[in-house]
Amino acid sequence: MRPLLEIFSQGEELVTGQIMDTNAAWLSQQAVAKGFTVTRHTAVGDNLSELVSLLEAIAQRADCCICTGGLGPTSDDLTALAVAKAFNRPLIFDAEAYEQIARFFANRQRTMPDSNRKQALLPQGAERIDNHWGTAPGFSLQHGRCWFVFLPGVPMEMKHLFHEQVLPSWPQRFALKPGILITFKTFGAGESALQELINTIEVPASVQLGFRAGTDDVHIKLLFPTDFPQQEMTALIRDFSERLGDVVFAIDGLGDSAGDLVFEVDKLMLARQATLAVIETVSHGLLAAKCIGCDWLLSASYQQSSIKSEADIDVMVVAEAMAYEHKKSTAADHVLVQLYAGDKECLHNKEKTIAIYIVLLTATGLHKVSHLIAGPIGRKQNQAALLSLDLLRRYLSAKL
Amino acid sequence: MRPLLEIFSQGEELVTGQIMDTNAAWLSQQAVAKGFTVTRHTAVGDNLSELVSLLEAIAQRADCCICTGGLGPTSDDLTALAVAKAFNRPLIFDAEAYEQIARFFANRQRTMPDSNRKQALLPQGAERIDNHWGTAPGFSLQHGRCWFVFLPGVPMEMKHLFHEQVLPSWPQRFALKPGILITFKTFGAGESALQELINTIEVPASVQLGFRAGTDDVHIKLLFPTDFPQQEMTALIRDFSERLGDVVFAIDGLGDSAGDLVFEVDKLMLARQATLAVIETVSHGLLAAKCIGCDWLLSASYQQSSIKSEADIDVMVVAEAMAYEHKKSTAADHVLVQLYAGDKECLHNKEKTIAIYIVLLTATGLHKVSHLIAGPIGRKQNQAALLSLDLLRRYLSAKL
Repeated sequence: MRPLLEIFSQGEELVTGQIMDTNAAWLSQQAVAKGFTVTRHTAVGDNLSELVSLLEAIAQRADCCICTGGLGPTSDDLTALAVAKAFNRPLIFDAEAYEQIARFFANRQRTMPDSNRKQALLPQGAERIDNHWGTAPGFSLQHGRCWFVFLPGVPMEMKHLFHEQVLPSWPQRFALKPGILITFKTFGAGESALQELINTIEVPASVQLGFRAGTDDVHIKLLFPTDFPQQEMTALIRDFSERLGDVVFAIDGLGDSAGDLVFEVDKLMLARQATLAVIETVSHGLLAAKCIGCDWLLSASYQQSSIKSEADIDVMVVAEAMAYEHKKSTAADHVLVQLYAGDKECLHNKEKTIAIYIVLLTATGLHKVSHLIAGPIGRKQNQAALLSLDLLRRYLSAKL
Repeated sequence: MRPLLEIFSQGEELVTGQIMDTNAAWLSQQAVAKGFTVTRHTAVGDNLSELVSLLEAIAQRADCCICTGGLGPTSDDLTALAVAKAFNRPLIFDAEAYEQIARFFANRQRTMPDSNRKQALLPQGAERIDNHWGTAPGFSLQHGRCWFVFLPGVPMEMKHLFHEQVLPSWPQRFALKPGILITFKTFGAGESALQELINTIEVPASVQLGFRAGTDDVHIKLLFPTDFPQQEMTALIRDFSERLGDVVFAIDGLGDSAGDLVFEVDKLMLARQATLAVIETVSHGLLAAKCIGCDWLLSASYQQSSIKSEADIDVMVVAEAMAYEHKKSTAADHVLVQLYAGDKECLHNKEKTIAIYIVLLTATGLHKVSHLIAGPIGRKQNQAALLSLDLLRRYLSAKL
């Protein structure tokens, strides 16, 4: 059983959406990697009774809780007070904490405002977490089944205190067995189509299977327990790879870190020392934009005039001709041409579909695909860019 | 008393920190602007009992709850099931929802997998929220004191459903007294520079002044109470406009809805019925990509070869020559050319700065600007695209 961990963030600016809670995601990654199951994130504003009831609830249901924010000097910083109320531990003046805060100001040749004295008041029995990066010391304490850690909300301070004083104490407090996470990154099939591909594979009960659909790709995740037999794991990963086939553009967790589709195309292009020239239509510059920093992209042009929509023209033939023509005027090794059938109205109308034709002309031959793309224009744009890059990816990884 | 709203996000990828909960912050901003008090954000993983207990708790303490995620076709998408359990409403097959999902696949000429049938199962008595952007329909229902709205977790789909079907229903369900929010959208000056421009203006205590610095622009917000005297408000807005000058590209809240910089350029180009051709370098296709849907952009080309870095070349003179040359070969009314000085290493290195030169050639003359851009390559790319569009914006709005 992995111990359960919750993240608790305090701040009016979080619940009103003025800032994003980057701390919660960051802390969760650390906790999952070390073997916790993260069950919940909660963010509340500067409201004492909300804070108190939340602390009481967490003390009942989690083994560890990392709390960020609310340790500042102002009247809306309520965390220590809420802990005192929730767990019936009066606030005690901590002389050493006060000394550290005073030193922080003295080092900067600034006068310490009276309000900062408040930050030296810690709940009775709490263990202080020294903060050399700001004025607010953190603290930790056990209540109910839960070990609570309170850290400042400023990300830089939070991360330093976490690395220096929280992370090293975890192994002594919890029996942690970090799992092994394998992620199949796929493009070209929806979540449900992927599920169909793998639904005859028997996944052992101890292995957690998960899906994550993003705008650009779909991830299939397998989380193995630490002590899962290596051979069985290898066999299962091979099964998944075989069933999923060439929609998988990268597998993360096997050693090399895997990136997104552009990252993988970049690796392959660099390995081959190849260059590319592009003519794009539907993707409207986005293909090139996604390849920022990729010096193998020699040129890309967006042309409105290259759009053909008359029914009696074979768009693929036009695209092929354009690719051969463009090859003459460019020094690039590969030429990629993207056209579509359907008039402008189809492109703009989210109810309508367009047919996209992509041609990749390489030294060894011509590769082509066509797809239907539906949805709002922004989605059509993005899919067109990704489908074009994916054709290149499959050629480069010799899957064509 | 402002009604209380909570945000509830479902997804293993959120609690494990693999993705950031951008939906929660975005939805909170919308809710606060409309007159809600947002009390809490909660994210939980794919765990039925956690979901059920959370739904039960929220039904007791909030007036409105927006839930995102967990509506997909796979076995770890548990939201509808959790609602059924928590609120004792069996799942009912919704034929119209099924029809829509089937149509989604038919439009793409794909076979609908069996697993998608699940998405047409809605809790008894729930009102369906049609989704034209993906397969998962949303739904809403009242339980306890709380009106629950369930939306898909994919941000693009969520935002569309929210704008089209949630936002319009709020005024009928809640007594909301939003203040009057005026937003000055600016480009070209940092937060502190903007603050300096306006710091001698006296803002009445009842008016809330705020800043929001985004990747693409900086917003200055004035939130007036509903009953603030109209004349005073007009005078204050005029003061702000005058002090801020031409860094303001749009003012939101005065009637016409204002968009981002591209939206404003689009309006101006359409009003003038003008067309544009672009040569871009640093922005690497992103200028064109941002203009998706803008038919006045006739062509855009990204050229690596157009980068000049030798110290003895006047880059602006080269850009001007290229603009005149390009004008000959295009039918566009305006030509925009973007070049930069500094070698490739400067472009890639986040510690180094490049100088960008932008020329806009119109029927009435030549306009040019140059800027230094620093930061990671992605920031340089984005700034280059925005600076180019902003030159066009200032020309079109006759501020040049």
